[in-house]
Amino acid sequence: AGGLTKLDRAVDLIVEMKNLSEVAVGLAYAALLFREKNVAAEVGVLEDRMDGMRYELEKWVLLSAKETEDPQRLLGLLHLATASENICDAAKEMAVIIEEDVQLHPVLAAALSQTDEVIIRATVRPGSEMMGNTLGRLSLETEAGMYVLAVRRGERWIYRPKADFMLLENDVLLASGPEEGGSGAVPTLWGRGGSGQLEVQ
Amino acid sequence: AGGLTKLDRAVDLIVEMKNLSEVAVGLAYAALLFREKNVAAEVGVLEDRMDGMRYELEKWVLLSAKETEDPQRLLGLLHLATASENICDAAKEMAVIIEEDVQLHPVLAAALSQTDEVIIRATVRPGSEMMGNTLGRLSLETEAGMYVLAVRRGERWIYRPKADFMLLENDVLLASGPEEGGSGAVPTLWGRGGSGQLEVQ
Repeated sequence: AGGLTKLDRAVDLIVEMKNLSEVAVGLAYAALLFREKNVAAEVGVLEDRMDGMRYELEKWVLLSAKETEDPQRLLGLLHLATASENICDAAKEMAVIIEEDVQLHPVLAAALSQTDEVIIRATVRPGSEMMGNTLGRLSLETEAGMYVLAVRRGERWIYRPKADFMLLENDVLLASGPEEGGSGAVPTLWGRGGSGQLEVQ
Repeated sequence: AGGLTKLDRAVDLIVEMKNLSEVAVGLAYAALLFREKNVAAEVGVLEDRMDGMRYELEKWVLLSAKETEDPQRLLGLLHLATASENICDAAKEMAVIIEEDVQLHPVLAAALSQTDEVIIRATVRPGSEMMGNTLGRLSLETEAGMYVLAVRRGERWIYRPKADFMLLENDVLLASGPEEGGSGAVPTLWGRGGSGQLEVQ
């Protein structure tokens, strides 16, 4: 029945590990910036999953090596996996200070607002173009380079929402993307229709 | 004469460290994907600079602590610096396999083309809208979320080109941004005018 080869499995894992490492870093910055303990905890969850995925990846790489001409060429996969795991560990180390209830100096938010890539938080207001629209239709990524890391709906957090995720009134989005000095894509986008409340930090 | 406070200096360093860590990761993926030894070497350069910046940052944080009420609140700055440095180390570890001339299995490029964020390489062709235009005017970041990591002009590499950087014929760009399955922003953008050759990997 066809089925995935060992290398296919390794590739699937690497893809997911790289994605998770980037999400973990974004969530860690968001947790720091907005003092969100739930978000910080999610970074810990991702870091745990990453450890398991790395062992799994190494297993598939070694099984593939047995069948591959010049198995040294698989070295890149191991290095990518290590990098993703280390990046996730770095994210965890940032997030942990939120979990531990340390008060943060406002200078931290000032610093995080001046970087090339920033984290924003936006609330979906009634009448906003965002309301009742899916993330895919809003084209946040392709039109403004904003990657939606998480959405809070009431008390619940949804992490890595998919393209078909529909936004409802009062949803709170955390997203990462390019900084444009407050005058570029971010306000334009979130403020489209004049009602997407925005809080760029 | 006014001048920067100790905390200002710490913030400037943190901002630059966070930016460099993200560039280093992007360059490391680009180096792997396109087997660019010069790019891999630049990741090593960034990692060296990062070490120095971290000591500098720690110095300014400690000097600030002496003058700050509840200096524990500065802990976030130290953790951010550690995270940036660790992320840069992870990038270095990926890039190093290119410097060492290991052959890479094509499955690696396949994996890196399936992630949420991808690295692209584009050449500026005569007649392309990109030619003679600055990066700022092209609005790559705000319109498509593409961050230009580096430009190769002849034999020379320019890393982290600024908004006023003007593209010339045959410049080769390395950029990172959201993956859209080959049908989204990237081809639209780079192919605007039908002549910006694109190679998405």
